[in-house]
Amino acid sequence: MADAPQGPPTARDRAQRKADTLARLQGDVDLWVASADGEGRAYLVPLSFYWDGATLTISTPRASRTGTNLARAGWARVALGHTRDVVIVEGGVETLEIGTDPPLEDAHAEATGFDPRAEPQDYVYFRITPDTVQAWRESNELQGRRLMRGGEWLD
Amino acid sequence: MADAPQGPPTARDRAQRKADTLARLQGDVDLWVASADGEGRAYLVPLSFYWDGATLTISTPRASRTGTNLARAGWARVALGHTRDVVIVEGGVETLEIGTDPPLEDAHAEATGFDPRAEPQDYVYFRITPDTVQAWRESNELQGRRLMRGGEWLD
Repeated sequence: MADAPQGPPTARDRAQRKADTLARLQGDVDLWVASADGEGRAYLVPLSFYWDGATLTISTPRASRTGTNLARAGWARVALGHTRDVVIVEGGVETLEIGTDPPLEDAHAEATGFDPRAEPQDYVYFRITPDTVQAWRESNELQGRRLMRGGEWLD
Repeated sequence: MADAPQGPPTARDRAQRKADTLARLQGDVDLWVASADGEGRAYLVPLSFYWDGATLTISTPRASRTGTNLARAGWARVALGHTRDVVIVEGGVETLEIGTDPPLEDAHAEATGFDPRAEPQDYVYFRITPDTVQAWRESNELQGRRLMRGGEWLD
């Protein structure tokens, strides 16, 4: 009998990782959002997102910890996928008030199944423009995990 | 023909959530660690962990961003599970040098499949003692998501 496969699969090349990453950005609904306040207290929640091909849009109550942290920092680090199929995106955050971009707001509601415009609480949108993107599965993929730097996909 | 099920399943009661949470702590290998530096820059990585029944032990290079952030803050917010089956633990962090607690270090290596004592880099352990635990799946479980407060499981 053949032995069961040992160890992780062969590391993906950059083109494959980029394709897998774009598929996640297009198909996934949720991500993990890390944020911090000005005193260095970290916070972490899952939120739904919408990917328009270039930016990620999320929405959360203005007064929530994530909302105040992102508005303060103007920068986000978010993770898609699972702990053994990681996509990490970092980038600048723009705060968008409800009503600023109705087509984007419609697309966000459709992608997430959640419409902050219908909520009684005071929600805002945060649009994240990726500056760096990393993707890896197992430790053999840590090398070569950077897919985007300074907002540019690497060749 | 019967319709497909609509909406999320019925919200779990607290006893079920606690049982599910303990099963995750016992059986899962990885979690997401949010941390921040003193200037309020958030960071987020997946790490393997060991649960001894009361505390979570992780290990990372002393000089890594997560290592310096956790040592500085003395507090961690970590997430197990997936974005639709969330377990979030917050608690104080104790830094343990390699060699402090060999049985714990052996158990960590066995649980995670990774032994920082064998690495060329300078690793340390961080032991997280849960202060608050929350668990939810869909939005209908946001109410009642607190399972532990002040280090005590709620009845």
